[in-house]
Amino acid sequence: MTYCVAMRLDAGLVFLSDSRTNAGVDAISTARKMTVFEEPGDRVMVLMTAGNLAISQSVRQILIEDHDEKRSLWTARDMFEAASIVGEAVRQVHRRDANALRDAGIEFNVSLIFGGQVRGERVRLFNIYAAGNFVEATPENCYFQIGEAKYGKPIVDRVVHPSLPLAEGAKCALISMDSTLKSNISVGLPLDLLVYEADSLQVNHFVNIDERNAYFRMIRDTWGHRLRQVFGEIHNPEWDPAAPAEFSLARSGEADRWAQPVRARRVHPRKPD
Amino acid sequence: MTYCVAMRLDAGLVFLSDSRTNAGVDAISTARKMTVFEEPGDRVMVLMTAGNLAISQSVRQILIEDHDEKRSLWTARDMFEAASIVGEAVRQVHRRDANALRDAGIEFNVSLIFGGQVRGERVRLFNIYAAGNFVEATPENCYFQIGEAKYGKPIVDRVVHPSLPLAEGAKCALISMDSTLKSNISVGLPLDLLVYEADSLQVNHFVNIDERNAYFRMIRDTWGHRLRQVFGEIHNPEWDPAAPAEFSLARSGEADRWAQPVRARRVHPRKPD
Repeated sequence: MTYCVAMRLDAGLVFLSDSRTNAGVDAISTARKMTVFEEPGDRVMVLMTAGNLAISQSVRQILIEDHDEKRSLWTARDMFEAASIVGEAVRQVHRRDANALRDAGIEFNVSLIFGGQVRGERVRLFNIYAAGNFVEATPENCYFQIGEAKYGKPIVDRVVHPSLPLAEGAKCALISMDSTLKSNISVGLPLDLLVYEADSLQVNHFVNIDERNAYFRMIRDTWGHRLRQVFGEIHNPEWDPAAPAEFSLARSGEADRWAQPVRARRVHPRKPD
Repeated sequence: MTYCVAMRLDAGLVFLSDSRTNAGVDAISTARKMTVFEEPGDRVMVLMTAGNLAISQSVRQILIEDHDEKRSLWTARDMFEAASIVGEAVRQVHRRDANALRDAGIEFNVSLIFGGQVRGERVRLFNIYAAGNFVEATPENCYFQIGEAKYGKPIVDRVVHPSLPLAEGAKCALISMDSTLKSNISVGLPLDLLVYEADSLQVNHFVNIDERNAYFRMIRDTWGHRLRQVFGEIHNPEWDPAAPAEFSLARSGEADRWAQPVRARRVHPRKPD
């Protein structure tokens, strides 16, 4: 599996991907899931992929090899056209592989996050599906996740909003990744982190993070430790009716059907007369 | 969907379930997923269900109606036999419904958490699958989740161990539920929380928690607030090589293949001669 997360903030874009891939637990390997298309001063595009690795590598290969002067990521007028081109690459792989995969009982499973900026246009971020269709991030929904997204969603939901500074976005992405790494062995180091400042039209910050990275080590240690500390500081529930009502979990006094658990009753059979 | 979590701690058991059920987003309803089998002084058993509601209600009905004096939850010698009886009920529903469901293109999807204590035996907790087979919680793996389990897993992974007091276990379960409620609309209030003290052989604490419950309201407000506070206190990543190395995310100086992102290069076609 995979976990990738990207945010479209007012200040720019944050992309983070892991690098674990597996075909069963006895075939675990490393694959980088982030690809950068950069022509400094003109465009920066970042693609992250999840799902079947053979499909996502084929999509990437098509996009990398495509140097059509009329229609390619290098010539797209804007990010919307670029996202369409990525979607077309997904459909091209579907035409080639989907029947053979279906015959083998394998779903055509791929999902992509694609974002960046073309000169003259704003920063944009898209989530592209296996059918080649896509949706765009908005101020109300300014991030996308693909792969093992659920473990790391609560912290993103609590923290991320468009006005978050880029460094805070990167920090949040790394904490979200840390929660995922801790709970799911199918997601693993090293990580690729890329931060793009709006209107810079070049890759500003990129780092490949492995277990030696001091900042990520600090996140791993500090976040878990502080989380347990906050947990300890929150009052325990009190069942005693004499406890302060503010924190009491006392059984409801109302005689409604909710106040009791759903109970099964033992019925003793009648003794024969 | 559903989210249920249960813990087998040294001090006893904690069970928490939500009550949302849906058949598509336009058919959302409320169903309680926790059922209690209690004969005070002799046995307490708690069943929680996730998956297809028709299946899980059928399983519950079979167990509630079963008053066989030789083999039922009321007469089982120990919790292992009781878990076997629950598994048999699942298989009975499978025999009755699985073919019809398959014809309708619906998977036979149910999973259950079942735990409690029979007099003379220790407290035990089981996770029962759709095939009627089951696994038991151990000191190394002392909790089970069913349904939408991933959002709430990181906090449980960080906090729960067998020596955790019951009140802390209940608090952790509620925080885990809060994270799930926040990130997934298919899980919803009210909640059923049941805490069982080992060797008491009766239900010690039960509460149905809705939006008016003061303790859960405190959890919802405090946890999110404190999480954002801790988030704010953690140093942001620094890209500047002059920044303290401890928190620096500076690009690796090593000239290895990992130090750069995977890049696509633009190739300009040769002009014809």
